Amino acid sequence: MRRHGPYSDEPPQTAPAPAVAPAPWTETRVVGRPLPRVDAYDRVSGSAVYTLDLALPGMLHAAILRCPHAHARVTRVDASRAAAMPGVFAVLTAEDASAAIPWYEGAKGPTSRLLDPHCRYEGDEVAAVAAETPLQAYEAARAITVTYEELPFVVDHAEALKPGAPAVHEGGNRVGEPRSYVRGEVAKGFADADTVLERTYRTPCEIHTPMEVHGSVARWDGDRLTVWDSNQGVFDIRNDLARALGLPLTSVRMICHYMGGGFGSKLDLGKYTVIAALLARRTGRPVKACLTREETFRSVGNRPDHTLTLKAGVKKDGTLTALQLTGLASAGAYPAGASAGYQVTDLYLCPNVKVDETSVYINAGQARAFRAPGFPPGAWALEQMLDDLAHAIGMDPVALRLKNASTVSQARGGQPYTSTGLVRCLTEGAEAFGWKAARARPHGTGPVVRGVGVAAAMWGYAGNPNSTVIIKYFSDGSVNLCMGASDIGTGTKTVMAMVVAEELGVALDRIQIDHADTGTTPYAVASGGSQTVLVNAPAVRAAALDVKRQLLDLAAAQLEVAPASLELRASEIAVRAAPGGPPGPSVALGDLRALQRQQVIVGIGRRAPHPAGKVALPFAAQFAEVEVDTRTGEVRVLRLLGAHDSGRPMNRLTFENQVFGGITMGLGFGLMEGRVLDRQTGRMVNANWHDYKIPTALDVPRELTCVPIDPHDTECNSVGAKGLGEPATIPTAAAVANAVFHATGIRLTDTPINPTQLARRLNDARSRR
Amino acid sequence: MRRHGPYSDEPPQTAPAPAVAPAPWTETRVVGRPLPRVDAYDRVSGSAVYTLDLALPGMLHAAILRCPHAHARVTRVDASRAAAMPGVFAVLTAEDASAAIPWYEGAKGPTSRLLDPHCRYEGDEVAAVAAETPLQAYEAARAITVTYEELPFVVDHAEALKPGAPAVHEGGNRVGEPRSYVRGEVAKGFADADTVLERTYRTPCEIHTPMEVHGSVARWDGDRLTVWDSNQGVFDIRNDLARALGLPLTSVRMICHYMGGGFGSKLDLGKYTVIAALLARRTGRPVKACLTREETFRSVGNRPDHTLTLKAGVKKDGTLTALQLTGLASAGAYPAGASAGYQVTDLYLCPNVKVDETSVYINAGQARAFRAPGFPPGAWALEQMLDDLAHAIGMDPVALRLKNASTVSQARGGQPYTSTGLVRCLTEGAEAFGWKAARARPHGTGPVVRGVGVAAAMWGYAGNPNSTVIIKYFSDGSVNLCMGASDIGTGTKTVMAMVVAEELGVALDRIQIDHADTGTTPYAVASGGSQTVLVNAPAVRAAALDVKRQLLDLAAAQLEVAPASLELRASEIAVRAAPGGPPGPSVALGDLRALQRQQVIVGIGRRAPHPAGKVALPFAAQFAEVEVDTRTGEVRVLRLLGAHDSGRPMNRLTFENQVFGGITMGLGFGLMEGRVLDRQTGRMVNANWHDYKIPTALDVPRELTCVPIDPHDTECNSVGAKGLGEPATIPTAAAVANAVFHATGIRLTDTPINPTQLARRLNDARSRR
Repeated sequence: MRRHGPYSDEPPQTAPAPAVAPAPWTETRVVGRPLPRVDAYDRVSGSAVYTLDLALPGMLHAAILRCPHAHARVTRVDASRAAAMPGVFAVLTAEDASAAIPWYEGAKGPTSRLLDPHCRYEGDEVAAVAAETPLQAYEAARAITVTYEELPFVVDHAEALKPGAPAVHEGGNRVGEPRSYVRGEVAKGFADADTVLERTYRTPCEIHTPMEVHGSVARWDGDRLTVWDSNQGVFDIRNDLARALGLPLTSVRMICHYMGGGFGSKLDLGKYTVIAALLARRTGRPVKACLTREETFRSVGNRPDHTLTLKAGVKKDGTLTALQLTGLASAGAYPAGASAGYQVTDLYLCPNVKVDETSVYINAGQARAFRAPGFPPGAWALEQMLDDLAHAIGMDPVALRLKNASTVSQARGGQPYTSTGLVRCLTEGAEAFGWKAARARPHGTGPVVRGVGVAAAMWGYAGNPNSTVIIKYFSDGSVNLCMGASDIGTGTKTVMAMVVAEELGVALDRIQIDHADTGTTPYAVASGGSQTVLVNAPAVRAAALDVKRQLLDLAAAQLEVAPASLELRASEIAVRAAPGGPPGPSVALGDLRALQRQQVIVGIGRRAPHPAGKVALPFAAQFAEVEVDTRTGEVRVLRLLGAHDSGRPMNRLTFENQVFGGITMGLGFGLMEGRVLDRQTGRMVNANWHDYKIPTALDVPRELTCVPIDPHDTECNSVGAKGLGEPATIPTAAAVANAVFHATGIRLTDTPINPTQLARRLNDARSRR
Repeated sequence: MRRHGPYSDEPPQTAPAPAVAPAPWTETRVVGRPLPRVDAYDRVSGSAVYTLDLALPGMLHAAILRCPHAHARVTRVDASRAAAMPGVFAVLTAEDASAAIPWYEGAKGPTSRLLDPHCRYEGDEVAAVAAETPLQAYEAARAITVTYEELPFVVDHAEALKPGAPAVHEGGNRVGEPRSYVRGEVAKGFADADTVLERTYRTPCEIHTPMEVHGSVARWDGDRLTVWDSNQGVFDIRNDLARALGLPLTSVRMICHYMGGGFGSKLDLGKYTVIAALLARRTGRPVKACLTREETFRSVGNRPDHTLTLKAGVKKDGTLTALQLTGLASAGAYPAGASAGYQVTDLYLCPNVKVDETSVYINAGQARAFRAPGFPPGAWALEQMLDDLAHAIGMDPVALRLKNASTVSQARGGQPYTSTGLVRCLTEGAEAFGWKAARARPHGTGPVVRGVGVAAAMWGYAGNPNSTVIIKYFSDGSVNLCMGASDIGTGTKTVMAMVVAEELGVALDRIQIDHADTGTTPYAVASGGSQTVLVNAPAVRAAALDVKRQLLDLAAAQLEVAPASLELRASEIAVRAAPGGPPGPSVALGDLRALQRQQVIVGIGRRAPHPAGKVALPFAAQFAEVEVDTRTGEVRVLRLLGAHDSGRPMNRLTFENQVFGGITMGLGFGLMEGRVLDRQTGRMVNANWHDYKIPTALDVPRELTCVPIDPHDTECNSVGAKGLGEPATIPTAAAVANAVFHATGIRLTDTPINPTQLARRLNDARSRR
């Protein structure tokens, strides 16, 4: 189901080019400034309506009964008591024909359906209830009597591949064929190396746990279904929902105006959404199905756990000669992508590379895309290995990376990058961080020691350029920006309005934005894969230029001058004055007769296709300084600096927000998070925010620094922006681990770096001394 | 405030032409068929949500306190008791700064504001309340203590012009300058005539009284206002509302998805709408302000009462030599258009024409556009005069009209019509009606006598061609039609969907329609002036063709054939087969790669400008047969036939609906309706459906016939349709009056033709015998 990421199976994406590709901006008046969000007040005041907040007249609430066992077969469901409980309007079980919607099907792949009697993990959907209040719904769901036949289970990916392991699906526990990549000949590469290292890294399963839980509200108006859903891309999910219900696309309207975080877990159609639609159809009432926090921990995706064995060879001068990665990862109970090898193939120049990755079914919640799918685990391995290699050959870790920086994508046939800021990220980041001085500073005599580390990253997906944008320019110069893109909390609306303001000279508060509504806005790709800005901003720019062209044409006809001689201002169109010359003739918008007659100018914009034969990807380097209490194993991250080549920073403030948010999430990945499955029962024991720790404000270093590296990329697209959302989180954990190594000499191969682990390792090291 | 009609002061309307004007349809598969409405089920099942039905969470209800006097000045308002009543959230009086919004202003014209202490009619707004329930709001409004200084009033337009008459506004009771039109020299025309007749006709004030009362619901989201309003054109009214509140156009979203009738009374911004917005802002809650039935009788418009003196000259052979019309009409308490002369200037060939019309302020509700503004009163005079002239010279009334039928617009400088169906309306209508036989049939010997009459009509407004339409074609071949046009009950949505179906080969139930929403649809002209179909259908067609062109281009590229060789079917695009030849290569929509990638094709359409140097207007002739009980004066209309050249009948069923609806309204005008103002108090005494009679199903003749006359007009616009809404009601009353004359020899110059009037006249005639 994963749609976004470097390993996507989609064919190369193209979009029809605009008639004339717009010239890159030479200077900008609005774009690039640090502007607060256009919806900041709504977000912080609480007046923004999230799906969770939505209340419709007559709305019912759904509760979903989930399997409490890691693996079981439902042999009997008795919903009679639940159906008779107060406030209950409908009960849906596997026995209802409408619940037999195929969920996974296919000749080779696994087969299951919406409510499947074969439950493959603790959390699989068994039945659902719609009732007047949430409490009535939960109580009724609990009152459904289900008889389960418990089955043997497996919750560890290594165990799952052993002969005789319980089968999650018929046909064994491998998810398809292993993914393999080969370049050159690694055996030869290792032979050429002066130093060869091999280590096995482990990263546990991480849960997205966004602030807003997953949920939908469904309402039927006759044969037309409207669904409010907390998701990252209304169009693709609408398509899947229409397909599940057998409806034309126009009959399903999906809306997501405010969204409280997704990080990849809200790119797919949820069963709760289909359940809400079915219950709403059954009851003739709107139905809200919002999951509980615990449900989201178990059932709506995660970053799979990985076991990655990386072997690397390097020459004394720092030249990488070979990289070999073998990976094993848990897809969970249903098919999911789980690979971590891209950076190994492409971040550094290396002639000999081999990657083999295997995904495995286990009896646990299914993996989904998670901010930079595969990349943080991959970076955890690769960037610590680079640190190890540097240490082994006595070279500075920054210098080693610079030595192997590439200007072409080796994984994509050697195509050149439209811009490569990696070198600048490393050098300018190191400069801003004070790397050399910090690296040379004594660690301290204990018990608290200090150290600094670096890690670099790239992101491997250049986006699907197929969004369409409509801009309406009204007779008073105010503007409607109609785009399908979701603003998943990253400031998309603000950035897009800034592009409109840039081209049409209109103030931000006169731009009204419709977005993420399949009923009113044109198709946009989902906000995932760091593609939102780089796909949609050029489309917005193209639409604005389409408006501008029409507007100048109308004014030119009225003023009887050439359109090219005109410029558009906030409330008038004027002939551009010669430098130092008198103001040229002008016409106020209110006097522009054709505009006042037709009242609106409609502009349509799409992004140009990707530049032929080139690759546009973002790069990053992050620098961390930590303090380790060698008595307790406690790690304090003192400061973190992110130097990011994501092309043009469209809004200096949201750019920084993204970097700081990504770093914070990276700290969670590196220092805190991990799903714990009880090996005795197969159940998740930390499915809540009390037992599953994520960083809070107190866990964030006091000193966070963002260093935007703008390579002034004029080829990647018409606005010069590359993606930022994912690269911001990729290298953080590895940078911290490298700093811990620098401080302590201890190499931690498993996340999370927690005091228990580190104290044990420090103790081991002391006892070896 | 009137925007639509032949006397509009707007400059000639033009719109940019599409790149290639589409060829007229030679044959159609969908357009023209008698199809039920796409929203029929919603309308008849009650699931359609009209403004009146709308309920929002937390919504308050507004009540408006209105002046009970015909003319008074508010000297004191005490709202303290009302403000303290249970459920009351806010009270708005003239003392509130926000209520000081200028309503009429201008150097010469009258000046007033939203809540004006100078009340000029019984019903002028004095204060408003928002409360939890409607009843609480009404009771609180009643509890506001207002001290009035009563002023002398005038409620008759002739009285209003007398010296010393009470002044409704400073500067006298004339509404601007008299409207005058002169062609040729009437004195010479009368001298040339063999017969000259002169009569004075009177038509009282008629109330629109649509099924759904006027009302709005206003909700603020931050600085953005959404208003649901029962109106005929969301865009122009939104513009006025934004102006009144000082907001950019994009900050005001106005929606009207279902509408229960307007007939011209819902073309303007209502004070209740502004009041709802102000109360909603004050309370932070949505506010509904829906008027009571009685309020709508007094305060939201009417067809003004007219006194029309018409003098006409004719030669023995039927040639008209001169027409002179002098008119006096009541605008009501505020400026309003009120002229009835257009048909006199243009329906029949006549070299010498003079029209002088005066509008007068009186202390009564303001006039507004009312289905064919000015035309039914004008036809009442002109078409009875033609009947009189025919009688005087011994000529058949149909023959007299045929003799003077014109193919050019004399009022518009002799420009030719794109098509003139008047002759066919008269001849084919007469044929279908059995005119000759019916005319020759004996009247009967009494006491019940029979007669037949005819009246012709034209409509004088060709529409403002400035609507824009957006069509989105989705990857599964389903379609979103995004148009601003209101469907005011006439079947607009259905007709427009049929145009899409015609061009894109898609079934009606796969076309989803967004309309009449300034937030989501592009500008459309208001649904008034009979322009809805003739302006919007060509724009829809242009948008569909834009989609089709793009779609065929994509398919042509994939199939490697020329786009012109392709045809679009419901689920595939195929090379058109040679007659009798094998099927050509084709691609299913699901396999059209570019469509599946970009997911949506967006087409934009606008209507071409009016044909240069030509005039496109509809014509009609209606035939009535009546039975008059000479003892009681009762008139029974036995049958009515409408022969209508409105160009192409887009949907045979809705065409007929319109004609029957127009005839029914014409019967109300001719036989029943009239506002009664008490001369002692200036108050309206029949402001409800009990005392003010409109036709019900029982009043409609059993035999209603619709004869569409399609002139196959290829010049008027790309769909060949002219307007139908207004002409359907123009000639009805005159046709009935002429039938009554035929039956009884009594010429009734005043509407309504009621038994009291007719019995008195029959009695007078008997006593003269």
